[in-house]
Amino acid sequence: MKQNKYDDKTFFDKYSNMNRSKNGLEGAGEWNELKKMLPNFAGKRVLDLGCGFGWHCRFAIENGAELAVGVDISSKMLKEARNKTKSENIQYICMPIEDLDFTDNSFDVIISSLALHYIQSFEHVLSKISKWISKGGEFVFSVEHPIFTAQGPQDWHYDDKGNILHWPVDHYFTEGVRKANFLGEEVIKYHRTLTTYVNNLIKAGFEITGVVEPKPEENLLHTVPGMLDEIRRPMMLIVSAAKK
Amino acid sequence: MKQNKYDDKTFFDKYSNMNRSKNGLEGAGEWNELKKMLPNFAGKRVLDLGCGFGWHCRFAIENGAELAVGVDISSKMLKEARNKTKSENIQYICMPIEDLDFTDNSFDVIISSLALHYIQSFEHVLSKISKWISKGGEFVFSVEHPIFTAQGPQDWHYDDKGNILHWPVDHYFTEGVRKANFLGEEVIKYHRTLTTYVNNLIKAGFEITGVVEPKPEENLLHTVPGMLDEIRRPMMLIVSAAKK
Repeated sequence: MKQNKYDDKTFFDKYSNMNRSKNGLEGAGEWNELKKMLPNFAGKRVLDLGCGFGWHCRFAIENGAELAVGVDISSKMLKEARNKTKSENIQYICMPIEDLDFTDNSFDVIISSLALHYIQSFEHVLSKISKWISKGGEFVFSVEHPIFTAQGPQDWHYDDKGNILHWPVDHYFTEGVRKANFLGEEVIKYHRTLTTYVNNLIKAGFEITGVVEPKPEENLLHTVPGMLDEIRRPMMLIVSAAKK
Repeated sequence: MKQNKYDDKTFFDKYSNMNRSKNGLEGAGEWNELKKMLPNFAGKRVLDLGCGFGWHCRFAIENGAELAVGVDISSKMLKEARNKTKSENIQYICMPIEDLDFTDNSFDVIISSLALHYIQSFEHVLSKISKWISKGGEFVFSVEHPIFTAQGPQDWHYDDKGNILHWPVDHYFTEGVRKANFLGEEVIKYHRTLTTYVNNLIKAGFEITGVVEPKPEENLLHTVPGMLDEIRRPMMLIVSAAKK
C-alpha cells in the first residue's frame, strides 16, 4: 500500500500552512540552490514526480517549457494545484509514482522535489525514469539527506535543559523504512545511503552533473529563527544528472 | 606549516601497529570496495598521493603498471616503504602533496588513500591533479567521510554507562580545521562537505564514475569486535572519476 499521507485532512491542513506551501518556491529554503541546478526549460517536455501544489510545473511553463506533467498521489494536493494553475500546457495526474507508465523518450526534463524518499525502491523508479527521459535529457531531484533520514525520528539530540547538542546518526547502512515525525504526525520514509542514490544513477546511464547539500543563505542565518541550526547538519541532497 | 604527524616517533610506532600497517591492503577494512573502483593498471603511469608504506604503489606494479610514483611527507613512512619495495619501477618522493610539481599529462592514474583530509585546500590540489592527469585518466581517492569529520572529536556519543548511543554530527557546513584524536594523539584534519568534494571534481573537468561509502563485509560483522558499530555511520568516502 503506497502511503498517501497528504490526503489525510489533519496532515494536509498542517502542510498547507507551511511557508513553502503558502509562499511557493520562494518559501522553500532550498529553492535558491535548486533553481541553479534546473536546466533551461525552453521548448522542453517536463515531468514532475510528486508535484504537490504544482509550483515547479508552473515555473517550467513560465520559463518556456512546451508541456509540464505533474504527478501526485494526493487528490487534495492536485485540487489545490489545479486551482493555482491557468496554463493549458500543464497536466496533472493523480497516481502513485510507482504505478506510472509513459512511452519511452516522453520527456526532456524530469524533476522531483522531496518526494523520492517516500518511495520504497529508488532503483525501480529510476529504471522507469531512464526510459521516459530522452538522450541528453536532464533529471534533477531533491531528497531528504541520508544523514537526516538515517536514525529515524528526525530530531536533534538535546541536553537535560532542552538545548540542542548535536544531530544523531545511526543505522546508516541499514536501508529501508523509517517512522519519522513530520508536522506532529507519523510519516513513513525510506532511508537510503548516498552510495545508493549516486551509484544507481550512474548504473542507469546518467552522468552526474551536480551534487549539492543546500545550506541557508547567509542573510537568513541571523534573521530567521532556528536557521543557525541548519548549518549544523545537512537536511537535503539535490542531485542533477544528464542521460547519456 | 604542513602537518607531518607520521614523523613523530610515538605516533609512527602506534600507526605501525595498526592492522592496515602490518597486513597491508588486506588489513584495511575498505580495501574490498576500493579495489573494485581501481582501474586496469596495465601499462599505466601511476601517482599515489600520501603513499605511506607503498602498498598501493606495489599493487599497481604487480598489476602491470609501467611506473608508480609514491609521494609522502613522512621520511619514516618512506623508509619503511623502500624496505618493502623491490621493483625499480617504483619511485618515492618525500614532499608535502601541496608542494609537488609535475609536467602536464604525466600520469594515467592518480590514487590517494586517506590522505586528502589532511590537506587544507582540496581545490588547490585538484587544480594540479587535473593538469598532471592525461585525458581519460582515472582519479580514485578515499577520504574520511564528511559525516565522520564534521563535529571534530571523531568519537561516538555515549550514555552514562559508556554504551554507544549514536554518532554525533555538528558544524557540517563549517568547513576547515578539526582537531581529532587518532591513536591517542591530536591530529589536525580538514572537514569538507560532500558538495565540496563532488562538485569541485565536476568543475575541474572530471566525470564522476563512482561514489562509495564502504561498509564492513557481512562475514566480518559478527567475528571482528566493534565491527557491528561500523554499519551505524559512514566512516569513509571513496570517489572515482575520469578526466574528460
